[in-house]
Amino acid sequence: MEIPVVEKVLKLNDDIAAGVRKRLLAHHVCTLNIISAPGSGKTTLLERSFGELREDLNLAVIEGDPDTTLDAERIAKHNIPVVQIETAGGCHLEANLVDNALNNFDLDAVDLLFIENVGNLVCPCSFDLGETCRVGIVSTPEGHDKPAKYPRLFKEADVIILNKIDLLPYLNFDVNVFREYIAQLNPAAPVLELSCTTGEGLDQWIAWLKNMVKT
Amino acid sequence: MEIPVVEKVLKLNDDIAAGVRKRLLAHHVCTLNIISAPGSGKTTLLERSFGELREDLNLAVIEGDPDTTLDAERIAKHNIPVVQIETAGGCHLEANLVDNALNNFDLDAVDLLFIENVGNLVCPCSFDLGETCRVGIVSTPEGHDKPAKYPRLFKEADVIILNKIDLLPYLNFDVNVFREYIAQLNPAAPVLELSCTTGEGLDQWIAWLKNMVKT
Repeated sequence: MEIPVVEKVLKLNDDIAAGVRKRLLAHHVCTLNIISAPGSGKTTLLERSFGELREDLNLAVIEGDPDTTLDAERIAKHNIPVVQIETAGGCHLEANLVDNALNNFDLDAVDLLFIENVGNLVCPCSFDLGETCRVGIVSTPEGHDKPAKYPRLFKEADVIILNKIDLLPYLNFDVNVFREYIAQLNPAAPVLELSCTTGEGLDQWIAWLKNMVKT
Repeated sequence: MEIPVVEKVLKLNDDIAAGVRKRLLAHHVCTLNIISAPGSGKTTLLERSFGELREDLNLAVIEGDPDTTLDAERIAKHNIPVVQIETAGGCHLEANLVDNALNNFDLDAVDLLFIENVGNLVCPCSFDLGETCRVGIVSTPEGHDKPAKYPRLFKEADVIILNKIDLLPYLNFDVNVFREYIAQLNPAAPVLELSCTTGEGLDQWIAWLKNMVKT
């Protein structure tokens, strides 16, 4: 009983996502779907990126969370247009939620849209949101084995960020083993090591973003 | 279309979970359903608990992961009976998976069964596994806002562990704010601060476990 219905839900989502993609393309909006476990640093990464980007690009953010508007409030403090999607306990964003959220922006005044998905390494991977690129984040305290245990995100991501490298001295995290897992799953994906606390490595991420918007 | 089917799935799971609970009770097995985000330290907490428990109690472990048997291999090194459930990308354990896994143990020779759920703060909360108690874990690098943003686990957990307190000096984690969120959601739940790296605070967890098995 369950599986055919799940397939219908996914097919319906894919159809809506195709419409979202067309809509974003028509307005020349580059859109990133940012996926990670809870607490990997998605919101902080956005906060740390605005300064370098806002002179050249018009930014906007969609925030997904099961509850609260805490993240949207953090973004709003930077005077970036933001819409919070509260999923009421739901474990991922879907394309129809994004489609509705887009009505709150003047899309002609947006060059780069960040969609911060619900913190979850599993479910968001199944739902296309109409994005240009998918960004996967892991933070060092989560352990170097995460790509092996939760492979789907790392197989499909266009770029992979290893965040919180400032904590490496205090952890048993083997960067080589981590990179080896990624190389097996997705050899083409760049792996960017960075720390939002110290700022180390953020320049690579900003360069990747600027190149992405240009192309 | 979708919601009635989801309700049916949950109702079916609850019925199977009731059977699992009866089965475990008949064999006097105390069972913990351990839920957290990926990388909060579930497996390491088990590894650090075996030494203090194994003289008095017969232990067993069920490991849930979307892919690989990495965690089961870690447990097996300690000569504790372990069964791995690979969910093939699935985002949570369900009662029927646990029911099948129990066939691999001599339940009369088990006092305390740990079920390590798939690393996910959202979906596992909806699925009763027939457990005696639910354990919620957060680690300090995930941030003190997690109970507010992902409230369901923290509302329903019988005990809440704050892991990786050895990293507090390097983080902007406010333990008071974290405890305040928990107090609002679930004032009865004990909050145990500990570090599996240094061993600090593990004694409270072991005492809580031993008391749970006795009662």
